[in-house]
Amino acid sequence: MILNPDEIEQESMRIIEILISGKYSGLAENLPVIKRVIHATADFDFLESLYFSENVINKAHDAIKSGLNIITDTIMLKSGISKTFTQKFGNNIICHVNEPEIYDEAKKLNLTRAIINIERAVKESPSAIYVIGNSPTALIKLCELIKEGRANPALVIGVPVGFVNVIEAKEMLMNLSDIPKIIAQGRKGGSTVACAIVNALLYSA
Amino acid sequence: MILNPDEIEQESMRIIEILISGKYSGLAENLPVIKRVIHATADFDFLESLYFSENVINKAHDAIKSGLNIITDTIMLKSGISKTFTQKFGNNIICHVNEPEIYDEAKKLNLTRAIINIERAVKESPSAIYVIGNSPTALIKLCELIKEGRANPALVIGVPVGFVNVIEAKEMLMNLSDIPKIIAQGRKGGSTVACAIVNALLYSA
Repeated sequence: MILNPDEIEQESMRIIEILISGKYSGLAENLPVIKRVIHATADFDFLESLYFSENVINKAHDAIKSGLNIITDTIMLKSGISKTFTQKFGNNIICHVNEPEIYDEAKKLNLTRAIINIERAVKESPSAIYVIGNSPTALIKLCELIKEGRANPALVIGVPVGFVNVIEAKEMLMNLSDIPKIIAQGRKGGSTVACAIVNALLYSA
Repeated sequence: MILNPDEIEQESMRIIEILISGKYSGLAENLPVIKRVIHATADFDFLESLYFSENVINKAHDAIKSGLNIITDTIMLKSGISKTFTQKFGNNIICHVNEPEIYDEAKKLNLTRAIINIERAVKESPSAIYVIGNSPTALIKLCELIKEGRANPALVIGVPVGFVNVIEAKEMLMNLSDIPKIIAQGRKGGSTVACAIVNALLYSA
């Protein structure tokens, strides 16, 4: 049994490469992100369902290396992003969702905290990197603010998960043609998927 | 589009119930946990792959309500567990994995930090609730310590994910017949799956 962390990582990637061999018809530049998502989920659906806009890996690397803020929709996702790398590039990871003001405003307006969190983040960092791993309402709000010209993200990772508003939210993002984006098409996604994508981009930046 | 959080939750569960209707042959008492995992992943494989030991839901509720510590293998998982409920029942959520001592010892021994984290946790809280969402080496170490009589968890949630040591780790746990357990059989699992299971148990406790 392999107990050395580097060897486990290498062996995992070797097995994934064997299992996806001949099954991927997309661009090679996107494959490291896809492999890391499969590594984090053991779910090969992501080989087909991950959408990458044109040249998004290079654009993501530029955004990371210029030290842009990374906005997340959950504290769980924020926790999972590699601090070793964000500290290296100077990216702050920001999520307001657990702050008392956000609770109060969401309750008052009868909206999700995810929506209020995004509104606040866009006011502070309209051109940041936005990573939505959980809440479709956060992604819908972000897309609305982009359409209104109030947000202009350097990158949107749109991988919310679930059964209500999820497909619609991802379609809204897909239709914003000028925004660099990575989307998990369909219902699947989640904090681990979002986290794997961000960390793959950080490792390779 | 539904933007009220309670309505989104209810509608999600209603859709999941329709989609799994007639496809579940297990015990009704385990279904709320399964539904919450599907809610968190949109992955219906978990309808078949989640294993529940006998009467584990009642045992989990007793463990939670007696305020036992909850040990996790990642900070990400710790972040996702509902603090509203752990505070209500008095459970501390503990994960040492990011502490400098753990880094040093793992590096010295050429082992994963996950292993050292579990060794430390077992010394402090041998009868706690153990939740392993990511690292098979953490689960293997925990199983070894149980076999040696050094750990006696009130509950083990064994849902690590991946391609190396994962199936083996879950089989080790499965063979520990006296331990109350929930296992995601096969390669799949992850922090979101672990988190969904713990939160489902907390909500219903």
